Amino acid sequence: MLKIENAVERIREILDDENLSQLREVLDDYHSADLADIFSNLKEEERLLCFKNIEEDKAAEMIEYLSPQLQVELLGDIDEETASRIISKLPHDSAADVLGDMEDNESETYLDKLPHKFSEEVRELLTYNEDTAGGIMTPVIMTVNDDMTVKEVLSSIRVQAQEDNMELYYIYVVDKQHHLLGVVSLRKLLTSPINEVIENIMITDIVKLHVDDYQDYIADVFMKYQYNALPVVDLYNRLKGIVTWDDVQDIVEEETTEEIYTSSAISTGNVDEDEILSGSITKAVQARTPWLFITLIGEFVAVHVGHKFEPTLQMLPVIAIFVPLLAGLGGNIGTQSITLMVRGLSTGELTLNSAAKHIMREMSIGLVIGSIFGGLVSLVTWGWRNNIYLGLVVGISMMINMTIATVIGTFAPFALKKFKIDPAVASGPVIATIIDVLGLAVYFTLVTIFLVKLT
Amino acid sequence: MLKIENAVERIREILDDENLSQLREVLDDYHSADLADIFSNLKEEERLLCFKNIEEDKAAEMIEYLSPQLQVELLGDIDEETASRIISKLPHDSAADVLGDMEDNESETYLDKLPHKFSEEVRELLTYNEDTAGGIMTPVIMTVNDDMTVKEVLSSIRVQAQEDNMELYYIYVVDKQHHLLGVVSLRKLLTSPINEVIENIMITDIVKLHVDDYQDYIADVFMKYQYNALPVVDLYNRLKGIVTWDDVQDIVEEETTEEIYTSSAISTGNVDEDEILSGSITKAVQARTPWLFITLIGEFVAVHVGHKFEPTLQMLPVIAIFVPLLAGLGGNIGTQSITLMVRGLSTGELTLNSAAKHIMREMSIGLVIGSIFGGLVSLVTWGWRNNIYLGLVVGISMMINMTIATVIGTFAPFALKKFKIDPAVASGPVIATIIDVLGLAVYFTLVTIFLVKLT
Repeated sequence: MLKIENAVERIREILDDENLSQLREVLDDYHSADLADIFSNLKEEERLLCFKNIEEDKAAEMIEYLSPQLQVELLGDIDEETASRIISKLPHDSAADVLGDMEDNESETYLDKLPHKFSEEVRELLTYNEDTAGGIMTPVIMTVNDDMTVKEVLSSIRVQAQEDNMELYYIYVVDKQHHLLGVVSLRKLLTSPINEVIENIMITDIVKLHVDDYQDYIADVFMKYQYNALPVVDLYNRLKGIVTWDDVQDIVEEETTEEIYTSSAISTGNVDEDEILSGSITKAVQARTPWLFITLIGEFVAVHVGHKFEPTLQMLPVIAIFVPLLAGLGGNIGTQSITLMVRGLSTGELTLNSAAKHIMREMSIGLVIGSIFGGLVSLVTWGWRNNIYLGLVVGISMMINMTIATVIGTFAPFALKKFKIDPAVASGPVIATIIDVLGLAVYFTLVTIFLVKLT
Repeated sequence: MLKIENAVERIREILDDENLSQLREVLDDYHSADLADIFSNLKEEERLLCFKNIEEDKAAEMIEYLSPQLQVELLGDIDEETASRIISKLPHDSAADVLGDMEDNESETYLDKLPHKFSEEVRELLTYNEDTAGGIMTPVIMTVNDDMTVKEVLSSIRVQAQEDNMELYYIYVVDKQHHLLGVVSLRKLLTSPINEVIENIMITDIVKLHVDDYQDYIADVFMKYQYNALPVVDLYNRLKGIVTWDDVQDIVEEETTEEIYTSSAISTGNVDEDEILSGSITKAVQARTPWLFITLIGEFVAVHVGHKFEPTLQMLPVIAIFVPLLAGLGGNIGTQSITLMVRGLSTGELTLNSAAKHIMREMSIGLVIGSIFGGLVSLVTWGWRNNIYLGLVVGISMMINMTIATVIGTFAPFALKKFKIDPAVASGPVIATIIDVLGLAVYFTLVTIFLVKLT
């Protein structure tokens, strides 16, 4: 792959020389995906100057690879005529995405300037929720009737596919009312006898999407069946468009980001992922405080537990200094268990059926690791404070804490899944705080029991 | 999508009735991806009985969707002749994957029974590292010469693609020595004049992979350029195979799992991901202890900091009970910052250039949230212990801790990336412990300064 830093430097040098013909030549040489990366790394005014110096076809190709913010920025900075021409060269779904990210009056201006048919088709896409199959799909697809022959289909492709900027993965077979009847792969088409009727070679057991299907469902279907493209139908099984694997790639990345954010106690419910990372501080605070607030309440419970044992602390303040050690390791091994279960449930490697098995397995792992670490801590503490009982109390607490942490960390994601709550929520503060509080209670109880030996 | 639980139940009922002809019929009706899911949920003996009752073509299709363990299990449980026939129906890359997961002597037995040409091609795939393009690619591809016409290519497809179970995405143009010259998409082929020479319609600016490219690089290339399939060449630019997007989908899932595991302090270096989740306990302990051990050392530093302030603790044991509260919230907000930066760097939304901007932004967020939470904690503590100074010390510590946590949590991933270390490592215990230790030091220092007012 291209070294983007070097390319950016090269472009900057040419910009400094104000050599526009060289600029045009160099920009034209890059792949549009590389160009998009280069543009993201340029300053706004550099970017605009470069954008004005690439030809419109290339500009349209590149626009598809850019982030929504940059798409809107660049198109807004050039004259409306050129911008409309570039938008009209985009595939329908990308055009709808770009226009959907603009202010309403701005997108209306462009829609009015676009070729009528294209503009109508894009307008229809804009009526769907952008997180559903309707909002994601490309409406222009290659359709044929079931009584056509292979030969007729091949000449039909020649006409239809040339006309629009049409993606060609499968050929969809529809009746006169555009109801979806079957699918033929290009491979099948190209290897069948030229006079074969389509009806005889089409597949009728079709995996399909509905216009209202949500993107997480769409991603699951693609991941499971591994097709390049899937047809999208409406309530009456009329073919409306196709969703292709590259649309799904973006969804999968977005879903993964959401899963990771949720696991780290960042709420994605009301704030868009992009805004959490680089939007206003208010938005970021909004996404980050809800779970922190729950942690706060949970930790007040921990404070309360500590308070209960204040007499013990009064008599033996040294025990306080082991609290971070116990909490840190309990939290860490618990997080490991939660992460393993959440990810396993998310990829489908784990099912609810295997909950009991995994709780037992993680408990064993907690016991083994807890014993090793507990033993180590016992020895170090004993050596340091010259009190074998203190060593034992800290070490045994460590072992119990780590075991409890693995069990809770394994149980919680399965329980949430069972009640149809996103298991990733388990990685959040609630479970961590429960592990914290229980660990603290175990430790202080042991300390109180053996207090005589410890002082 | 199919409700797998219901399907499994239905199959079990038929198995109980011992109605094999109905079993065959029902199994045949499922999509092979669904069958694979059903098989994963059956018990071993049920699975085997079902496997013996699906026809071989369907068995081959389903095998591709199964996990490696189940592939080896099922093929090992049926007679060698049938197993070889099923393997010979797999695409080359899947056959190589299945055979690569078996014991050497076992896979040799099958390789000897496979058709000679297929067996040779699969043997060649097995010589590549399974994590490189060579190990992932399909070697059978549609190739043509640059002096052929569209018409000749179309008839060549008819012969070549029918012969092998060949995937058809692009047509690759090679010279007599099989050097890669260009690529033609099926769309271009089908919309070009029938007598056009391939040389004139092929793309020569080809994004391609090298047989030795590693899978993370391959995933990056696919994610960036968004092609369906990419050609794989050797050192001399001879075309060896293609990698398709569904292979990459598996890689992306694996890479994401690795990223998530690393973020949760689970080492994927020496232990396979699958084994961490469901292998032997020894393997799991091996993957989970390294970072825990580093936490242990880090937390001993925290114990040492606590020890330094033992005189303070002695005079005012109550301050110990606020430690989990401060550590919990500092850790949480720090994790949020780390997660945001690690994910942003991983998806390419963030670059090293934006480090300073993001450190400032996160610091502001830390200050805002820290002030809110610090204020709350001050009030609650003041009300509870009836000591405004204690309230202020705990609250101000909270604010400082949370701000420090966001700054370190933002700085660390960028710094690691700068030194070419996986930023996900930052989510691990080292940074968490640094945040812990610093937070503790700030708190105890403030307590010591205001000790007179607090007692």
